[in-house]
Amino acid sequence: MPGTDTSYVVLSGGVGGAKLVLGLRDRLKGSQLQVIANTGDDFEHIGLPISPDIDTLIYTLAGLANQATGWGLKDESWGCMAQLEKLGGETWFRLGDQDVATHLQRRELLANGCSLSDATATLARALGVDTAIWPMSDQKVRTVIHTIDGPLDFQEYFVRLQAQPVATGFDYTGHSAARTSPGALQALQAESLAAIILTPSNPWLSIDPILSINDIKNAITACGKPVVAVSPIVGGKAIKGPTAKLMQETGSEVSALGIAKHYGDILDGLVIDNQDIAHRDAIEAMGIKVKTANTIMLTQQDKSALADVVLSFAAELSGGNLP
Amino acid sequence: MPGTDTSYVVLSGGVGGAKLVLGLRDRLKGSQLQVIANTGDDFEHIGLPISPDIDTLIYTLAGLANQATGWGLKDESWGCMAQLEKLGGETWFRLGDQDVATHLQRRELLANGCSLSDATATLARALGVDTAIWPMSDQKVRTVIHTIDGPLDFQEYFVRLQAQPVATGFDYTGHSAARTSPGALQALQAESLAAIILTPSNPWLSIDPILSINDIKNAITACGKPVVAVSPIVGGKAIKGPTAKLMQETGSEVSALGIAKHYGDILDGLVIDNQDIAHRDAIEAMGIKVKTANTIMLTQQDKSALADVVLSFAAELSGGNLP
Repeated sequence: MPGTDTSYVVLSGGVGGAKLVLGLRDRLKGSQLQVIANTGDDFEHIGLPISPDIDTLIYTLAGLANQATGWGLKDESWGCMAQLEKLGGETWFRLGDQDVATHLQRRELLANGCSLSDATATLARALGVDTAIWPMSDQKVRTVIHTIDGPLDFQEYFVRLQAQPVATGFDYTGHSAARTSPGALQALQAESLAAIILTPSNPWLSIDPILSINDIKNAITACGKPVVAVSPIVGGKAIKGPTAKLMQETGSEVSALGIAKHYGDILDGLVIDNQDIAHRDAIEAMGIKVKTANTIMLTQQDKSALADVVLSFAAELSGGNLP
Repeated sequence: MPGTDTSYVVLSGGVGGAKLVLGLRDRLKGSQLQVIANTGDDFEHIGLPISPDIDTLIYTLAGLANQATGWGLKDESWGCMAQLEKLGGETWFRLGDQDVATHLQRRELLANGCSLSDATATLARALGVDTAIWPMSDQKVRTVIHTIDGPLDFQEYFVRLQAQPVATGFDYTGHSAARTSPGALQALQAESLAAIILTPSNPWLSIDPILSINDIKNAITACGKPVVAVSPIVGGKAIKGPTAKLMQETGSEVSALGIAKHYGDILDGLVIDNQDIAHRDAIEAMGIKVKTANTIMLTQQDKSALADVVLSFAAELSGGNLP
């Protein structure tokens, strides 16, 4: 196991990513873990600034996430939504009463001049989270899904239309001008950095938006540390969400190999599921090392075990030269 | 009783005013009643546009008001406030979960270009209210309480400091430039108008802000219809809130006579409580007619009975020349 002075940068979207982050947090001190969160899904809704992936990460690390739904808080009440419905308001994006407080407080912090990074840190700290969660950017970068029906904003596509429209491509509006958040950059440039971990979040919708920020991509390349991903495709299917559907629609092979091809050069290692061992050789032929493991994280034990695999794989890839 | 074609304009603040409005609604059709609401207490709080008196009127007329607290909705839940407290947010102004929805939807309507009048009408209609509630102005007019500790915004004074500071005077910032809302003006200029009713709300904090709008004062004078008030002082005490304390601090006699002196010329009639009959002659000597009644509205019956007194008094004052 790695020493307690090494640090890890984890690129994460929501649910799937947060599971691995929770496993890593179980194996590392809070201060060893720096999460860079996708903010491409962020949007303003009924006047509230909503950062779905940041919130899923905070709620998950705080032990407050609703595991049944995969979003929001457990033990929620729904008085606000019920009343909003009576008032003719928009209710397609479900916000629990406690969740509304998160967004109200985030807006208050932003209105008082906080960056999204500062606001995130304040909210996370208030809920007892001791792991740094950095927005990929404090500026606005928004994921657009191009579909055969035209371009759609992420939440429009994902929540309102339930990922039904056929996708043809993706854009991360604003990414080329956006700088990453200072905390994220610092984490990627830290001497203590041992590896960069890409969680099994959706590559197109959760990880690519993060990598679309030039600062982040450049810092990852410059740091020379191993980059390890966990494949979100298991046995030709996505664990959750529209990953497989999107891969198919946009012409990728729906397999661990397809994931390896998508990430390509940036990866040093890919953790694939035990049942995908047949893809190992083809992936390694691309110059990407492969580790097989159980990647389906149902229990806390699963999460921690996968974290162990990722951390020892990273140590192996660094040739034992951990900081 | 008046005919069903006559209309009444009622000037009202929150709780005390809403009680009489409810009584009047019991005796009149919804369309006969036009309420002009104080918006001097309005403020923006954690990014939400809050209109306390408008909301109390809507909630009361919708049968949804929390009678125990005198503000907010009955059967509320408090998940949002509880979470906001955990997050270090501001919780001195208590907003129930359903109440938050009202403010979110109001903001959404305002952000989409609605006037406060339009937003109020939309919210009221959604909750089944068939009585028009007009903001005294669609523009920002804010009540400032001058105290020996300096000037205070209304909610600062009333909620946060619980009306403790000693008041020295009042300002209605923005009133001289503000126009009244088109609906309020139309109501005051209607041919069907039978009388103008000043509810037993706090004269300084609820009624004077309305009268500080020149359009309203001028329209009341111009229409020549009887103006009838109900005294909020009973037996030298205010039914509720800081009215008596404010009267004392600012040098008024705490009595029905003090109320008559404060309103002065604008009044044609004043309904005082049975127990204040000793003040009748002094008030009538000022040229203001007096009617005595039970003005303490505990039950719906009390409210409707007081409404009857006010309506027949108005008819009497108009010399039988109701429209």
